[in-house]
Amino acid sequence: MPPRYRPADSLASPRFTGIRTFARLPHVQATADVDVAVVGLPFDTGATYRVGARFGPEAIRSASALLRPFNHELGVAVFDVLSVIDYGDAAVVPGFIEPSYAAITALLQPLAAAGVITLGLGGDHSIALAELRALAAVHGPLALVQFDSHGDVWDCYYGTQRYTHGTPFRRAVEEGLLRPERSIQLGMRGPLFAASDLQDARDLGFTVMTTTEVLRHTPEAIGALVRATVGDAQAFLSFDVDFIDPAFAPGTGTPEIGGPTSHQGLQLLRACTGIDWVGADVVEVLPALDHAQLTAQLAAQVAYEFLSLVAHRRSAGDART
Amino acid sequence: MPPRYRPADSLASPRFTGIRTFARLPHVQATADVDVAVVGLPFDTGATYRVGARFGPEAIRSASALLRPFNHELGVAVFDVLSVIDYGDAAVVPGFIEPSYAAITALLQPLAAAGVITLGLGGDHSIALAELRALAAVHGPLALVQFDSHGDVWDCYYGTQRYTHGTPFRRAVEEGLLRPERSIQLGMRGPLFAASDLQDARDLGFTVMTTTEVLRHTPEAIGALVRATVGDAQAFLSFDVDFIDPAFAPGTGTPEIGGPTSHQGLQLLRACTGIDWVGADVVEVLPALDHAQLTAQLAAQVAYEFLSLVAHRRSAGDART
Amino acid sequence: MPPRYRPADSLASPRFTGIRTFARLPHVQATADVDVAVVGLPFDTGATYRVGARFGPEAIRSASALLRPFNHELGVAVFDVLSVIDYGDAAVVPGFIEPSYAAITALLQPLAAAGVITLGLGGDHSIALAELRALAAVHGPLALVQFDSHGDVWDCYYGTQRYTHGTPFRRAVEEGLLRPERSIQLGMRGPLFAASDLQDARDLGFTVMTTTEVLRHTPEAIGALVRATVGDAQAFLSFDVDFIDPAFAPGTGTPEIGGPTSHQGLQLLRACTGIDWVGADVVEVLPALDHAQLTAQLAAQVAYEFLSLVAHRRSAGDART
Amino acid sequence: MPPRYRPADSLASPRFTGIRTFARLPHVQATADVDVAVVGLPFDTGATYRVGARFGPEAIRSASALLRPFNHELGVAVFDVLSVIDYGDAAVVPGFIEPSYAAITALLQPLAAAGVITLGLGGDHSIALAELRALAAVHGPLALVQFDSHGDVWDCYYGTQRYTHGTPFRRAVEEGLLRPERSIQLGMRGPLFAASDLQDARDLGFTVMTTTEVLRHTPEAIGALVRATVGDAQAFLSFDVDFIDPAFAPGTGTPEIGGPTSHQGLQLLRACTGIDWVGADVVEVLPALDHAQLTAQLAAQVAYEFLSLVAHRRSAGDART
Amino acid sequence: MPPRYRPADSLASPRFTGIRTFARLPHVQATADVDVAVVGLPFDTGATYRVGARFGPEAIRSASALLRPFNHELGVAVFDVLSVIDYGDAAVVPGFIEPSYAAITALLQPLAAAGVITLGLGGDHSIALAELRALAAVHGPLALVQFDSHGDVWDCYYGTQRYTHGTPFRRAVEEGLLRPERSIQLGMRGPLFAASDLQDARDLGFTVMTTTEVLRHTPEAIGALVRATVGDAQAFLSFDVDFIDPAFAPGTGTPEIGGPTSHQGLQLLRACTGIDWVGADVVEVLPALDHAQLTAQLAAQVAYEFLSLVAHRRSAGDART
Amino acid sequence: MPPRYRPADSLASPRFTGIRTFARLPHVQATADVDVAVVGLPFDTGATYRVGARFGPEAIRSASALLRPFNHELGVAVFDVLSVIDYGDAAVVPGFIEPSYAAITALLQPLAAAGVITLGLGGDHSIALAELRALAAVHGPLALVQFDSHGDVWDCYYGTQRYTHGTPFRRAVEEGLLRPERSIQLGMRGPLFAASDLQDARDLGFTVMTTTEVLRHTPEAIGALVRATVGDAQAFLSFDVDFIDPAFAPGTGTPEIGGPTSHQGLQLLRACTGIDWVGADVVEVLPALDHAQLTAQLAAQVAYEFLSLVAHRRSAGDART
Repeated sequence: MPPRYRPADSLASPRFTGIRTFARLPHVQATADVDVAVVGLPFDTGATYRVGARFGPEAIRSASALLRPFNHELGVAVFDVLSVIDYGDAAVVPGFIEPSYAAITALLQPLAAAGVITLGLGGDHSIALAELRALAAVHGPLALVQFDSHGDVWDCYYGTQRYTHGTPFRRAVEEGLLRPERSIQLGMRGPLFAASDLQDARDLGFTVMTTTEVLRHTPEAIGALVRATVGDAQAFLSFDVDFIDPAFAPGTGTPEIGGPTSHQGLQLLRACTGIDWVGADVVEVLPALDHAQLTAQLAAQVAYEFLSLVAHRRSAGDART
Repeated sequence: MPPRYRPADSLASPRFTGIRTFARLPHVQATADVDVAVVGLPFDTGATYRVGARFGPEAIRSASALLRPFNHELGVAVFDVLSVIDYGDAAVVPGFIEPSYAAITALLQPLAAAGVITLGLGGDHSIALAELRALAAVHGPLALVQFDSHGDVWDCYYGTQRYTHGTPFRRAVEEGLLRPERSIQLGMRGPLFAASDLQDARDLGFTVMTTTEVLRHTPEAIGALVRATVGDAQAFLSFDVDFIDPAFAPGTGTPEIGGPTSHQGLQLLRACTGIDWVGADVVEVLPALDHAQLTAQLAAQVAYEFLSLVAHRRSAGDART
Repeated sequence: MPPRYRPADSLASPRFTGIRTFARLPHVQATADVDVAVVGLPFDTGATYRVGARFGPEAIRSASALLRPFNHELGVAVFDVLSVIDYGDAAVVPGFIEPSYAAITALLQPLAAAGVITLGLGGDHSIALAELRALAAVHGPLALVQFDSHGDVWDCYYGTQRYTHGTPFRRAVEEGLLRPERSIQLGMRGPLFAASDLQDARDLGFTVMTTTEVLRHTPEAIGALVRATVGDAQAFLSFDVDFIDPAFAPGTGTPEIGGPTSHQGLQLLRACTGIDWVGADVVEVLPALDHAQLTAQLAAQVAYEFLSLVAHRRSAGDART
Repeated sequence: MPPRYRPADSLASPRFTGIRTFARLPHVQATADVDVAVVGLPFDTGATYRVGARFGPEAIRSASALLRPFNHELGVAVFDVLSVIDYGDAAVVPGFIEPSYAAITALLQPLAAAGVITLGLGGDHSIALAELRALAAVHGPLALVQFDSHGDVWDCYYGTQRYTHGTPFRRAVEEGLLRPERSIQLGMRGPLFAASDLQDARDLGFTVMTTTEVLRHTPEAIGALVRATVGDAQAFLSFDVDFIDPAFAPGTGTPEIGGPTSHQGLQLLRACTGIDWVGADVVEVLPALDHAQLTAQLAAQVAYEFLSLVAHRRSAGDART
Repeated sequence: MPPRYRPADSLASPRFTGIRTFARLPHVQATADVDVAVVGLPFDTGATYRVGARFGPEAIRSASALLRPFNHELGVAVFDVLSVIDYGDAAVVPGFIEPSYAAITALLQPLAAAGVITLGLGGDHSIALAELRALAAVHGPLALVQFDSHGDVWDCYYGTQRYTHGTPFRRAVEEGLLRPERSIQLGMRGPLFAASDLQDARDLGFTVMTTTEVLRHTPEAIGALVRATVGDAQAFLSFDVDFIDPAFAPGTGTPEIGGPTSHQGLQLLRACTGIDWVGADVVEVLPALDHAQLTAQLAAQVAYEFLSLVAHRRSAGDART
Repeated sequence: MPPRYRPADSLASPRFTGIRTFARLPHVQATADVDVAVVGLPFDTGATYRVGARFGPEAIRSASALLRPFNHELGVAVFDVLSVIDYGDAAVVPGFIEPSYAAITALLQPLAAAGVITLGLGGDHSIALAELRALAAVHGPLALVQFDSHGDVWDCYYGTQRYTHGTPFRRAVEEGLLRPERSIQLGMRGPLFAASDLQDARDLGFTVMTTTEVLRHTPEAIGALVRATVGDAQAFLSFDVDFIDPAFAPGTGTPEIGGPTSHQGLQLLRACTGIDWVGADVVEVLPALDHAQLTAQLAAQVAYEFLSLVAHRRSAGDART
């Protein structure tokens, strides 16, 4: 029996027609017969530099019209395997982080409880804490696989501010939402505040690899390292588009030059097969600074690759792992 | 009893949340309890110069998130009077004008037959012919009120091409869809192909006023002239955004400098009270050349003013007329 | 004796050289021999739609390099009359409105106490409340002259949020910072949430004129009305760039089409002579959506016209009033 | 007998086809049977602020593809009256003003000597001196009709630099190329260096009107003033696009907000009938800062209106004058 | 004897002067003494998503002003070996694919018959069918070397539409214009409609390599594979700019992230020495979405590399092969 | 004792606050206790194609707000080792290269004489000659390490122009400012004027490597080659942003596609440890064509890497060399 919810067929109706949902999927607020729910999390008050990722979900949905159903690299017909919906957005409160966190968690927790994998479209990276609160409440502490140029494990900004897009993963560890020894951060680069920045993440228990270290290995080797780190833990994928070089992702809040190409980034992501994903997000898409939808299309493809990884594991032959 | 279909309240959920529909209205494909249906008509193969208006409906929907429900200038609470939906888009066929016309007409005619006023979001101006075919099939020949810098009554392009965005209103007259003596074109300007260009429209029976002539009168006087021309005929409003100066509407296909300001344009439109509208469109929004959503927001507001004119006539005191 | 602090001379060193300060003025943090201090207030967490005005002060300073010292329209050599400095920015806390208000007020109040007129560069309009707290603490309640397309006197957003860029002037009245009967709002337009929106401001005691009403009068008549309203009260000028049509000011957070041209706007502002200004701001410049510095240059000129109004009143012949 | 050189017909071949020449005219380097030669003058080393007008001629040619042959406002079929060519560009020397002046003058003087009216596409305004040297060498001192927000009659920049885009008309008077008492400058605005700036131009003999003064009169009254000033002198039209407000002409080097709209600008220009033009230029188009070709299209239309004024005078019924 | 037609020398006249032709070559419509004719094919009605490649030839010509005559990588002084002209554009009919095909074929076939190699500047990829019709009519079926992220061998769009930019190479095989066993497609990537998409091209007889496969080999190895595939057949090079990652070529209609860099792309192209080229095109340049001419400059360089490959083969020492 | 001059702390005050100086360093015009002075050199009259690098220093300063103090790749806390200031700009004379050279040299020579390393922010590459005049006057002839896609050793442009951005290093050799046998040029690519172009630089004594050659080696090997070439000579680093592919640096004057990625570029630069730098520049940043500050951020990072190289050598353990 084919999945209940599937995208519109762009060989029948042009992909530029219709209300914009992710990948031309149905906009439904349901959990029955749903494998994955795409949810917009348009919150950006956590940003410390450029701001505007509240328009990220709209932009990613628009760019996702170009997606097609068969992932040749992973050999999987994504929407033949998974029933996927666009659930809409959380009713965040711009300017106020705590009620926004509450709104995000309140929306996601019932989805997780119903066995639905959540795929958040950000929004700045501060939203990850709210997502992890929702998922850990259902699944217990999770493994984290984070692609990002920044570790986002600082303690405070401006003296006393504990909730920003630079702090969510330290908070998540403190709140017991993550299993640090099962977690890995990939891609750190750019000038740091201090020599201790990367060590701090390692002290929390995370495995940490800089961009330079990542690019010294093949994607396959990195995929194996990720699998070895995560093991059989339930895992959350957090993909900050600033992991990729800003030439490929200009529309973002805190760009760091010197990053991987989008080809390298996709190959790395596709290598992360064999993992028991329960949720994911793609964050820090800032459309006002994007050009020709480069960043939005990258984010849409990252979301699609996550769906593909889930479909790949569920389908009979998970050949790579 | 309040209208069945109403917009989301932007004082409750932020206007940048949710799937983008026109004015945050429900996306419904129904006719019961519907006064006006907004329909995307993303077709641009009729364009003879810059092209890309197929993305116009998406852009207008995005910009329309800024609309609020009370029109102070006309004194009407639009969505307290009218039940309005976003019906979605016609499944046009890019590159092929005749099947696209068929698709548009097939979508609109049942709406018109059900007594629903249609409000098309273009798309290039060639779509007007398909809209008029649908509406005239139900209502008989219509009066036309056209705001535009070009008359769009040329006969052929490139020798023999009869269907382009420069020809729809000549075709509509030929097909008996319009009542030319009840029709008026406002805003012609820019260099012409020949001295006969304006006379041709007059020979078809239209009243024609250039931008220079329009701007020599008050909006109230123009409104009175429009009412006098249309009389009690059922009427179609066709608003090409190039009626307004391109500084206010840069994202369009065939810009003509030297036009009215957006303030002047809105005042002219608001003066067209007291008319029995059965349909409208706003066309030639080309997002790839827009900036900061100027053009899309203008088009969204034009659509909103049309809704306001309809609501104004339906509400008890149509004070101006 | 000429003023102590003056701009660099752009006939001697090119205007594109040097660290960017407002109008190429000295960057000094002093009060002695200072008539007016320009202060950046780069806070935008109060924005409810587009966000990014935290980069407004940088953009206004950059565009202000084009300013020259003689205002021909008012007949005043601004920097021969006034000693003006660029004081730098308040250390706001992005994402957190209350400590940001505290930082702004803490910076401005000593300036006001030292007799320095403050000229704030925003930032979103929420900053006006912090400015008014600082100035009213020194001067007592002030008259307000507000150019804006929105009244910004709503009560709450999203249920319970009292501090946003849509609420500062209601809060200011509640806190006793304004003399509403001496205050005037000019330029309201665009769709409203409800028929009561304008009446609410009038109920607070403000005089309110819509854009349509303003444009029906000459600038001189509006200037006379402003003077009659303010009388001899000490006054604060708050200029939201969305007062002007977005074709002239695309880089702003909540644009409303159908506004005055920049020529009309400047003429209106220049007509507000004869008023005892103690402070001003120009707000809602959002550079990521600006083009060719249109908005930033407009804001820089508005700030310059404010300086000119102050200089005009201080110079011997205040001819217009 | 129809003119020898005429544009391609855009109803036969699409206007976006072919090598870009001005108005789709033939690219010919000839003088026989030529009434007007359009010449690109891509020099911008005279610019004191933003630079890049060397790409102005390319941009104006591109935008001019939208022009059509009949000017309805002046009632003249331009290319039925005039034989016009695109002569190509002067081989200026970027970075070096004196050899560039020599190259421009060497190209234009033989055209003028052959009785050809020259229409220069700039380039920054410094080129006007080279044009006037060429034309005055043939025709003697000329009347100047200058639309501009700046008078460009300063003496020196940076101490001793006499040749910049801020000085050409003072130099032209000093070199005896102009008849100041027959010359008029229209549109000055923006902050000035000193109170004497406008008086300096008047002291040179020019009639000077600010933007504010111009906009207090009808276009017809300004046209009459221009005719009265110029009388029967041979005249040069110099149109700096910064005469128009930068919302309509963002791509320019020294924008001044608060200017006329493009509608006002065109009406003023069209009112300048009845003058014996021997040359013209349109300058300060800076494409890197343009948007959607707004500025380039404005400049193309200004050039077209100049052709129309020449054609209008040459055709039998010069009805307005 | 040096070639008859050569570019202007940019050390003599600045490269930003003159009417824009490809590489500053003469605009001539001739075949005598011509080795290669560059022809604009500004047709984009075949595009199924973003549209606007009709302005591609203009943009490529503009960017090509930066080209210089010596290709160091291939060691060839291109314009010492080849006589090259810019022939102008085909008079396509926007909106109508069949008469446009006829116009393209009618223009190219006589050039091919005269022994001139044609180098088409697109335009969307649908034009390739018309080019192949012209060349195959003269030369017989050709080998195809296609750099592209999409195979463009789908059968129909929207049910029954057989002529779009997604179908030309299937049509070309059906019409007997290609030798599939001598043809190779390089660079396929991105989500597919179905698992069969790549197999369909292989079933037609083409050799197909995905981007991932191409990037696993050295450029030299790919060059050898191309040579082995083509053999001594007469060959057509079709280069869709979406072969390259959209960070390097944002201005295109159907971007696919994860592609080669421009360095990789050029090295691959330069490796294709030793082939008997009879024609080429570079397609899908969509200037409205380009930035800083990135895409146009890439396309210009691709065209230049094709000229270099032809010159390399014709010059005495074709060292690589 | 910590360095006297240090950047503001972005964990205390947001990085978007304050007057823009390089890396939030103090704007001081001093030499005491200063190790490195950053100096803006906003001159662009030497540019032969696109122009506008006069705004480069402003853009680099703006983007440099993102820099943080610890360079993880080189393992150095830059501002714990070095006292760095932003000295402001040279008062260049736009349009006139010789007085501009004089102004630059006059500013830099006293800094060099005081033992301060100078770090120039361009401006076009012509400024390098003025910098080298200042530094060689103090230090004697220098080694040059030049990252650039062009050698900039042409002799003349346009017949006789000896001072442009294409000629500075030939002039520097002629003037005895460089030690060619200790100098290396890295990254040449793009079409050349003639086969002799690269040989000319080698004939001057420079080591020259093309982009293709550079990318065939590891960064470490290139670093070793640079060290071997320079030896113990005092050296000047000149980094033209067009060394990097224009996808990563679109805002530049003479882009050449096919360049290194920013990751490759940074790795190459970081490998150049162990050299006795006395000065550096980063040039050809043209903000009007930049996007999302890509180019400006790259240039800021290059400047930061230079500071890091200096700090690395000065700190105890220069581990790599």
